[in-house]
Amino acid sequence: MERPRHQGMAKNTYMRWRLPLVCLLWEVAMIVLFGVFVRFGPEADAHWEEEKREMNLTSDIENDFYFRYPSFQDVHVMIFVGFGFLMTFLKRYGFGAVGFNFLLAAFGIQWALLMQGWFHSFKNGKILIGVENLINADFCVGSVCIAFGAILGKTSPIQLLIMTLFQVTLFAVNEYILLNLLHIKDAGGSMTIHTFGAYFGLTVTRILYRPNLEQSKDKQGSVYHSDLFAMIGTLYLWMYWPSFNSAISEHGDAQHRAAINTYCSLAACVLTTVAFSSMLQKKGKLDMVHIQNATLAGGVAVGTSAEMMLTPYGSLIVGFICGIVSTVGYVYLTPFLESRLHIQDTCGIHNLHAMPGLIGGIVGAITAAAATEDVYGKEGFIKAFDFTGPYRTRTPSVQGGFQAAGIVVSLLMAFAGGALVGKTFPLWFHPFLLMLSEHSFHFTSAILMGRAQS
Amino acid sequence: MERPRHQGMAKNTYMRWRLPLVCLLWEVAMIVLFGVFVRFGPEADAHWEEEKREMNLTSDIENDFYFRYPSFQDVHVMIFVGFGFLMTFLKRYGFGAVGFNFLLAAFGIQWALLMQGWFHSFKNGKILIGVENLINADFCVGSVCIAFGAILGKTSPIQLLIMTLFQVTLFAVNEYILLNLLHIKDAGGSMTIHTFGAYFGLTVTRILYRPNLEQSKDKQGSVYHSDLFAMIGTLYLWMYWPSFNSAISEHGDAQHRAAINTYCSLAACVLTTVAFSSMLQKKGKLDMVHIQNATLAGGVAVGTSAEMMLTPYGSLIVGFICGIVSTVGYVYLTPFLESRLHIQDTCGIHNLHAMPGLIGGIVGAITAAAATEDVYGKEGFIKAFDFTGPYRTRTPSVQGGFQAAGIVVSLLMAFAGGALVGKTFPLWFHPFLLMLSEHSFHFTSAILMGRAQS
Amino acid sequence: MERPRHQGMAKNTYMRWRLPLVCLLWEVAMIVLFGVFVRFGPEADAHWEEEKREMNLTSDIENDFYFRYPSFQDVHVMIFVGFGFLMTFLKRYGFGAVGFNFLLAAFGIQWALLMQGWFHSFKNGKILIGVENLINADFCVGSVCIAFGAILGKTSPIQLLIMTLFQVTLFAVNEYILLNLLHIKDAGGSMTIHTFGAYFGLTVTRILYRPNLEQSKDKQGSVYHSDLFAMIGTLYLWMYWPSFNSAISEHGDAQHRAAINTYCSLAACVLTTVAFSSMLQKKGKLDMVHIQNATLAGGVAVGTSAEMMLTPYGSLIVGFICGIVSTVGYVYLTPFLESRLHIQDTCGIHNLHAMPGLIGGIVGAITAAAATEDVYGKEGFIKAFDFTGPYRTRTPSVQGGFQAAGIVVSLLMAFAGGALVGKTFPLWFHPFLLMLSEHSFHFTSAILMGRAQS
Repeated sequence: MERPRHQGMAKNTYMRWRLPLVCLLWEVAMIVLFGVFVRFGPEADAHWEEEKREMNLTSDIENDFYFRYPSFQDVHVMIFVGFGFLMTFLKRYGFGAVGFNFLLAAFGIQWALLMQGWFHSFKNGKILIGVENLINADFCVGSVCIAFGAILGKTSPIQLLIMTLFQVTLFAVNEYILLNLLHIKDAGGSMTIHTFGAYFGLTVTRILYRPNLEQSKDKQGSVYHSDLFAMIGTLYLWMYWPSFNSAISEHGDAQHRAAINTYCSLAACVLTTVAFSSMLQKKGKLDMVHIQNATLAGGVAVGTSAEMMLTPYGSLIVGFICGIVSTVGYVYLTPFLESRLHIQDTCGIHNLHAMPGLIGGIVGAITAAAATEDVYGKEGFIKAFDFTGPYRTRTPSVQGGFQAAGIVVSLLMAFAGGALVGKTFPLWFHPFLLMLSEHSFHFTSAILMGRAQS
Repeated sequence: MERPRHQGMAKNTYMRWRLPLVCLLWEVAMIVLFGVFVRFGPEADAHWEEEKREMNLTSDIENDFYFRYPSFQDVHVMIFVGFGFLMTFLKRYGFGAVGFNFLLAAFGIQWALLMQGWFHSFKNGKILIGVENLINADFCVGSVCIAFGAILGKTSPIQLLIMTLFQVTLFAVNEYILLNLLHIKDAGGSMTIHTFGAYFGLTVTRILYRPNLEQSKDKQGSVYHSDLFAMIGTLYLWMYWPSFNSAISEHGDAQHRAAINTYCSLAACVLTTVAFSSMLQKKGKLDMVHIQNATLAGGVAVGTSAEMMLTPYGSLIVGFICGIVSTVGYVYLTPFLESRLHIQDTCGIHNLHAMPGLIGGIVGAITAAAATEDVYGKEGFIKAFDFTGPYRTRTPSVQGGFQAAGIVVSLLMAFAGGALVGKTFPLWFHPFLLMLSEHSFHFTSAILMGRAQS
Repeated sequence: MERPRHQGMAKNTYMRWRLPLVCLLWEVAMIVLFGVFVRFGPEADAHWEEEKREMNLTSDIENDFYFRYPSFQDVHVMIFVGFGFLMTFLKRYGFGAVGFNFLLAAFGIQWALLMQGWFHSFKNGKILIGVENLINADFCVGSVCIAFGAILGKTSPIQLLIMTLFQVTLFAVNEYILLNLLHIKDAGGSMTIHTFGAYFGLTVTRILYRPNLEQSKDKQGSVYHSDLFAMIGTLYLWMYWPSFNSAISEHGDAQHRAAINTYCSLAACVLTTVAFSSMLQKKGKLDMVHIQNATLAGGVAVGTSAEMMLTPYGSLIVGFICGIVSTVGYVYLTPFLESRLHIQDTCGIHNLHAMPGLIGGIVGAITAAAATEDVYGKEGFIKAFDFTGPYRTRTPSVQGGFQAAGIVVSLLMAFAGGALVGKTFPLWFHPFLLMLSEHSFHFTSAILMGRAQS
């Protein structure tokens, strides 16, 4: 702080204009793209009365809105309050965590509506959106919030926006490969959201490694009240996770089942987290960081399988294991990653999202491979895995194999994508680009603000 | 604090009895009025089975409860947690903000159920209530919470209760003129809630102008934790605003569409708020007050048009503009209003509710005027604007004109009502009234508390 | 702190292993019992398509999930955030309150699913669960959270787990007696949750009486921010209480009615709480403890009658009375209970749950006894009280008598159960048991952790 930072000063002049520039230009781009591509889907369009007759629905209550809107709102709370406040445990970054999370998520959901729309809801040149698209956009942004947890305290808002742009794009590609090409199931996103998001963030933080971040460790300490704020984040994630895993499942039994499985897994996870946190700490005291994070691992780990016939006791077992894995990870693995592999994982997302996400992918593959017509019923079997059309003849064990392939694809995409984003960060600070942006922005803003004459 | 405040002391004696008196007598009045007038509507009454047959409904799920209850709960959270915590950013008024907001809202919803009931749900001498009435009562109280934001720190709880009584009454009258006489649409309340509430509060704060409030400015500072508490309020308002704007829309596509439009507008608003906050601050830092407030302007500004075919890109444009208008307002307009017009706007409701509310009214008028049968479909067109009965022949452009008239009526009601309430405040402190209340209250409480003998 | 606490030290060595031991072994027990007994109910099972045909349902939206899931999530928030944060008002126990509440609730819901399942959802040797079971498990745990409020600051997490185990068991027995044997109505749990939970907790705290707890009173003080955190708890309980009382009511009008009645009762309760808090305090200031707690009494007191035809004004009267009773209780009764009866009621649950719970039972009995076919309609009358099968001929006045009997049974169960738990606490600390646990645990963990060789 005492040493003059001339370079920083010079940078500051650019800084001042860069964030407004990016926010305004990107938002204008969103408006143009939405104008060209995005329209209301049939259930949100004023032609709904005709649509209803066509779909042979008798009541407005059968509009998809009423199936999914309560879950959507819970997911929305998880993204903005859950992830935002979970990261307030650092006493110096509290407001930054909540505020930057707000900014990146608000931009991310718009870009996700477009990216996911082109891949999944494109019809006659238009993206037709409804409540399910809103949920999927929130999901996509969730993976960015996860990655943010690894680099918290190391990045500027503008770097976060750049990361969001790239990560959302790659998320949509990865999701398309998994859901459409491999035809696999991942309603709660163990693979697409957690595995992908976490390893993406860990790759970025590895590239942005700062050897002397240690010195500013006091900044990273927690204080009493910041721990209570973080618990708000934890509890909202924990309570609403059943909605997260069931939000885009098939109507009826699948949504119902996904909520029950997640509820069970999370409950078990709390007990093993407390057990191992107490066991591995000196004097048997509980570590607040474990309670705030590892208790959530159970929700991550049933993301793929929650809508399948995992059964309540299967969920308890998954939650039991993940509470242990995650807590042990915080105690032994995080320090190891930092000291040996130079991966500074601020919030410990490797323990909360990466490992449980992998476990979730594996549990999903096993549960799919073990499916039988007896357990699911003849109709339920086809409905659960969508064994229709070209996939009519796919067997559970083949499905299990594809599920496993999905884990590998997600990992590869995360490593490649994270490396790409981390490596290209410096490019965005190139003097020429900065100068260009500043001038174009000065010009634009002068007109906008009516200060051209001054 | 050091100077003896004799007048204040003398007042305190009265004060002690006045708040209990008002609370108890008004609550007794509520009980009597509810006893005479309020009954369960057909969908909440035990005769529902017969009602169901009469309405040709086949399932309990078609009860209005299931269409609106999730949105109702979101709105409920916005009123009590959202508005309450949004005002905790002042370090000295934190508890007062939440607590007084709680008190005024709890009284207000009862009085609103009656006032709105007489105007809209009166049948055979009874007010028949259901979940939609609860939402409308919350909406009505929302306008009082907005006005509270302008006078925060200047008023006693009893003054707030008096303001609530009058404002709810005038709200119901204004709403009746707009919805029933002008037959206009305003499901999210850009005009009825925001424009009316904000200009009402601004008029009251103008009358209660205190020249030396500046001296106590240190009271108005914010601290780190109070800013995080305020973010809880901000985020719950932001996340649940789609529920606010869709809560009382028509079943089906209208609710669905209102949620999507609001979601889009709010997302865009965050980016332009961040852009302008960073641009207009020294050193390009973000101002927390802007993040806490201006990010919500996009929700206010699609209040009227969200249920119409505004389209997602239309919503983005509205949000884009409102983030700018609101942030610029905080930077330039609020200081101007205070120094020149003597309008002390504690929370900046002029930027968050008044201007975006006006924009919302105008956007609604334009969207209505631009409606065509082609865009809405033949049935959707009639349903969206309720062009039935005496309004069978109304055209979109005429509807647009009436919508615009609604803005003017709301403004006039707000100015007149605010002036009335501000001016009559002193009357309630008249020595004779105070003495009378004190004596009557001493007497009543002596009996109630069984202390008559002492 | 200065005095050496040898005994405590020695205890600490055991302590370190005891909590992990209990958590892990109990969770393993849960897994085994769930494996043997718990399966998905018909509406969450993949055979749902066949079930739907059998039940003559035409749409997936008629799955019980869509009737109850939004209410379930609200109840979930009440248990984990509501009760958790309500207890953060003590400046030293803030994190403990939230964290321990989290632990006991996470264990409790699993055990409650089993206990309530055996009594209510047992079919062909299996417990078939759905969303209604999740709500009931949360309800059951709610009664433990209430009891926790009486002993907050006096117990270790392990004691809380033991209390949870016993209290959930007795809750299920009591509930079975009331709902199945006495065939009474108590959808919001005035008797089963509040009366039982509160008197259970009060009995335990009486037995755990510590004469010199007074000395550590400074620990029990509140600070500014802890009061704001507590208001988060208060407001979420207050806002979501309509969901609590309507969550397991019959589909349709009963859920609708229960929400309206609770909304009204709570609103009235706020005003009388403020009135009496201001009246009974020196200088007419409001006491934050009253605002945080007594405002909720109205929700407790309509727990039994909310789904009946209590009418909105009846609800206002109940709320009116309970705000007064609860506030007066905080001012006069709590100090009396502590000084004379040695009942240290940390959070004042006697005022918030015990007395309002009793009032709720009585109001329910009266409302049931006053029911007529005229008010409910012929079908509604039978549906409301389930006067079918063996209860075909039961009259309202008889029902009222049984309702009253339910209050007495709940009280007796609470006193007996609380005494049993309080008295057996010391047994769990018996040296032999401690030694045994420690050794078995050392052994198990050595294997688990792969440290057997060291």
